Amino acid sequence: MAAPETVHKPLTTGSLPGSRKIYVEGSRPDLRVPMREVALSPTGSEPNEPVVLYDTSGPYTDSEVEVDVERGLRPMGRAWVLERGDVEEYAGRSVCPQDDGYRTFEEAENAVQRFPETRRPLRARSGANVTQIHYARQGVITPEMEFVAIRENQRREAIQEIVKQHPGYSHGASIPSRITPEFVREEIARGRAILPSNINHPESEPMIIGRNFLVKINANIGNSAVSSSASEEVEKMVWATRWGGDTIMDLSTGRDIHATREWILRNSPVPVGTVPIYQALEKVGGVPEDLSWEVFRDTLIEQAEQGVDYFTIHAGVLLAHVPLTARRLTGIVSRGGSIHAKWCLAHHRENFAYEHFEEICEIMKTYDVAFSLGDGLRPGSIADANDEAQFAELDVLGRLTQIAWKHDVQVMIEGPGHVPMHLIQENVTRQLEVCGEAPFYTLGPLVTDVAPGYDHLTSAIGAAMIGWFGTAMLCYVTPKEHLGLPDRDDVREGVIAYKIAAHAADLAKGHPGAQYHDDALSKARFDFRWEDQFRLSLDPERALKFHDETLPADSAKTAHFCSMCGPKFCSMKITQELREFARSEGLSEEDARQRGMTEKADEFRASGSEIYGD
Amino acid sequence: MAAPETVHKPLTTGSLPGSRKIYVEGSRPDLRVPMREVALSPTGSEPNEPVVLYDTSGPYTDSEVEVDVERGLRPMGRAWVLERGDVEEYAGRSVCPQDDGYRTFEEAENAVQRFPETRRPLRARSGANVTQIHYARQGVITPEMEFVAIRENQRREAIQEIVKQHPGYSHGASIPSRITPEFVREEIARGRAILPSNINHPESEPMIIGRNFLVKINANIGNSAVSSSASEEVEKMVWATRWGGDTIMDLSTGRDIHATREWILRNSPVPVGTVPIYQALEKVGGVPEDLSWEVFRDTLIEQAEQGVDYFTIHAGVLLAHVPLTARRLTGIVSRGGSIHAKWCLAHHRENFAYEHFEEICEIMKTYDVAFSLGDGLRPGSIADANDEAQFAELDVLGRLTQIAWKHDVQVMIEGPGHVPMHLIQENVTRQLEVCGEAPFYTLGPLVTDVAPGYDHLTSAIGAAMIGWFGTAMLCYVTPKEHLGLPDRDDVREGVIAYKIAAHAADLAKGHPGAQYHDDALSKARFDFRWEDQFRLSLDPERALKFHDETLPADSAKTAHFCSMCGPKFCSMKITQELREFARSEGLSEEDARQRGMTEKADEFRASGSEIYGD
Repeated sequence: MAAPETVHKPLTTGSLPGSRKIYVEGSRPDLRVPMREVALSPTGSEPNEPVVLYDTSGPYTDSEVEVDVERGLRPMGRAWVLERGDVEEYAGRSVCPQDDGYRTFEEAENAVQRFPETRRPLRARSGANVTQIHYARQGVITPEMEFVAIRENQRREAIQEIVKQHPGYSHGASIPSRITPEFVREEIARGRAILPSNINHPESEPMIIGRNFLVKINANIGNSAVSSSASEEVEKMVWATRWGGDTIMDLSTGRDIHATREWILRNSPVPVGTVPIYQALEKVGGVPEDLSWEVFRDTLIEQAEQGVDYFTIHAGVLLAHVPLTARRLTGIVSRGGSIHAKWCLAHHRENFAYEHFEEICEIMKTYDVAFSLGDGLRPGSIADANDEAQFAELDVLGRLTQIAWKHDVQVMIEGPGHVPMHLIQENVTRQLEVCGEAPFYTLGPLVTDVAPGYDHLTSAIGAAMIGWFGTAMLCYVTPKEHLGLPDRDDVREGVIAYKIAAHAADLAKGHPGAQYHDDALSKARFDFRWEDQFRLSLDPERALKFHDETLPADSAKTAHFCSMCGPKFCSMKITQELREFARSEGLSEEDARQRGMTEKADEFRASGSEIYGD
Repeated sequence: MAAPETVHKPLTTGSLPGSRKIYVEGSRPDLRVPMREVALSPTGSEPNEPVVLYDTSGPYTDSEVEVDVERGLRPMGRAWVLERGDVEEYAGRSVCPQDDGYRTFEEAENAVQRFPETRRPLRARSGANVTQIHYARQGVITPEMEFVAIRENQRREAIQEIVKQHPGYSHGASIPSRITPEFVREEIARGRAILPSNINHPESEPMIIGRNFLVKINANIGNSAVSSSASEEVEKMVWATRWGGDTIMDLSTGRDIHATREWILRNSPVPVGTVPIYQALEKVGGVPEDLSWEVFRDTLIEQAEQGVDYFTIHAGVLLAHVPLTARRLTGIVSRGGSIHAKWCLAHHRENFAYEHFEEICEIMKTYDVAFSLGDGLRPGSIADANDEAQFAELDVLGRLTQIAWKHDVQVMIEGPGHVPMHLIQENVTRQLEVCGEAPFYTLGPLVTDVAPGYDHLTSAIGAAMIGWFGTAMLCYVTPKEHLGLPDRDDVREGVIAYKIAAHAADLAKGHPGAQYHDDALSKARFDFRWEDQFRLSLDPERALKFHDETLPADSAKTAHFCSMCGPKFCSMKITQELREFARSEGLSEEDARQRGMTEKADEFRASGSEIYGD
């Protein structure tokens, strides 16, 4: 049997500095929505309310929970699934050596250790449909939907208070000021949002992907044939969600795919996506031509039984599209896309995922796996952006979306890739139109090709913009993109870069809960509450470390300046002195405003010396 | 006397991997425009032309030039200045201990070593105006303007070739396909671009800042009272320009400001900007109330004689604006702005830089120092973006621009700051309108406040967008922003982040020279020319390092895959095989395109098997 140490390395646990896990209870005691509360120090004698933030990190940051990787997380959602009475336990498909890339049981002796628990899978009873969109269309608000509503709301009451105190706080919101469970249901019912929740992944904390909610991010993990191990992957998942990954995709290739995925799923508090064609390809020895519908179908069921929440399926890559890529600078850059294209060409036949799309829908609704319709022909360079091939595939994805919806299956649509800034908006406009507003899930896009080593950044620019324009989830890119497999630091860099992009998009969309965080941090900055500034950063550890590189002394944490400008040149310090001075001179700010502020600067100048009185 | 080692640390020299310095000669032999040529390996037996890139790094990357920091760079532009016959050498102002923050000559014994050469300063002869805008308005094309035209053109001929071969290469350019010296002159004459070139900084290689040229970036360096030394600052300048800084600003405060600046100027191949109020404040012991017009004026002349190319002057912060900041979340965050505001309030008088603005113009035109009209009231947080205070100041800057232009003095306008994405465009639109299209020079903007430790990234998002909308130069932000003084690594991170933003903006604006670089890199990627990919990266060293972390073997540099996907899953490899396959099957790509590509995907499907013939 396998080397147990490959999965027993300690996982990262404990809360971020200054934070603690709190839970907001819903309409039933088993519906407890986790949030991260950041305690703040007072401004002088005035207390500052704690800030409550959306929390993706699961029980790993709850000091009261002892995580046992061998048992997995508590299957919170299982009761909700079972009580609906439309599922059944069954034996499930037999796991075979080929699932992990081995030809025989003997060869598989060297495989990684299997996850110990042997819960039998659930599936929809014959004739039933267990998708969230199906329930939503029946008018049912599931506990998952209520969970999501509470989660998205965060501290809306507190925010409403702030808006009252600071008019002009929100720059024109278009998102409802309060997310209700009914609003969640409506958005899911009309296909504008998805709630990925495979009935076999009850460890996941429900979350929603749709453009009228907070913009989400996905972090890719996964070993490749060249590098990485199962234990690293579980820790990468914990690590990626610790920093803010809303979902993760397990893009493993090579050996031990099935076993690694099981460890990840049983320990993942966020939905897990995969690209099943990768594993299917392993099963046929890495030769695209040897793929078949049967192998692909078997892989879908295998992964659905394990609990994968969404599948990237490149059903829109058609045989006729392949010539459209012939004159491209960089051809086909999607791995899945190129595999399907090669198969189509070799057999002179249409893509089997396209031909069997309705059968795939049947599988999806048996477990509530959501489609992530892959953009197999996305551009891989600035030169190829928004071309014929890309948009021809998008048109097919639009038709497939309608078919999936006919089956009450949840769908999102994947998008590019590499796109210069001025061509980004067209991607969203066309996607929304062609795909009936199904959620858009984009990789970046990278806005230039010239910076390998910094593609988390080239793509965060595009991601922020496309998020603002309406993308519901952003797939992260790490600094290693195009160069190698990301390590722990790269995952963190990638996740934070994308949290920034997603948050910037929420701000620009006028999401009422977004600016609350910025304002709390800026107020801490202006008050010289350094510790609070660090705690409120997306990466408290780095903020503290950077500050301490030049001013490590504890006293600097209360200093009214920093090493950037030094004490004499701190504008914030001078502003505070200035306000103090104005007060001591008996200036009424309101008087001053009313007297002068709507007039032109010229006129101010003449009356300038009077504004403050003498 | 001073410790010589503070300035004698070796500077970073030598070209970037795979690059060499070339010069393009203009209409006269002393007009040699430096460029960086990147040699590429062939694709199979087909050679790839070298790529020529804009080069800001000066003689430090020219292996033929031996740099001697004690002598400074060759004063290339001095002959051009002298031959115009409108300047005179003179004794100049006496340097005193106060210039370096010392009260007495005795105290100054501990100062840093002075730069050895004692070139006497130049100034305009009585009644003359030596600014580039003055010459431009007289219809004169200076050597500086010709230099800039060649520099901006780069490899336009090569690019025209590429456009011919790849129709649709450029996504709708609005920039002239060829920059002529006459075009440069026109843009300067109408104030839409500036060519910063103090007659006392002949070491600088002419460059232009204007929205119809390549977007430029500035890197801030400078010691503060808390940290840093003169030698570090010279190396920071060399380092910042090595990675692509188009100008640098010396924001030093504390001691040895004058001496440090001299070392920087004599060794800087790029224009140097300063904020003179910082030094003025040092001269009065750090007490804003003790400032006076006389001290400020003296500082302007001191720095103009040294060769500073542009001055940030916060002449738009008026007494009447101060109350507008009272209800802000973060008040005044510009150091210069807060100093002027405090002075105004303390004296109940108008800003002396505003009151003496025409006298300042007289100084500027005596040396050709350009204005960078400071945005002293820029927002320091998302909450304060685009507010009354910010736009009231902008209106004043518009009027000051007209006054400067009346004097034939070059002007650019500084901009924010912290701005959420949806409010960025308004900043550009208003600035262009209010300031008669004078070049905009923005700090970021940061699109969110929640990520201290990553503000190079939060601001690169805003910078790319605002550059696309029309900002001419982007002031970089490093990861240490808000936390501490940037070190060497931070400067590099900041510069590269901003090169990405500027280049992304050039692409989006349709600059005909921009995509040439992306396409060369993407072609190298598709061809698996790994070394070329590294060389063409904005940071070749990091690209190589990241690649080698997972695949260090030399053989991997020619491998047709990388560690990210491994050999079986490389989409580019599959695409190449696919193209090979199509060729071997006798497929004419053009036939295929013409037969099927304009029809709907549905119809393709039926005829799919015929497309490639049997």
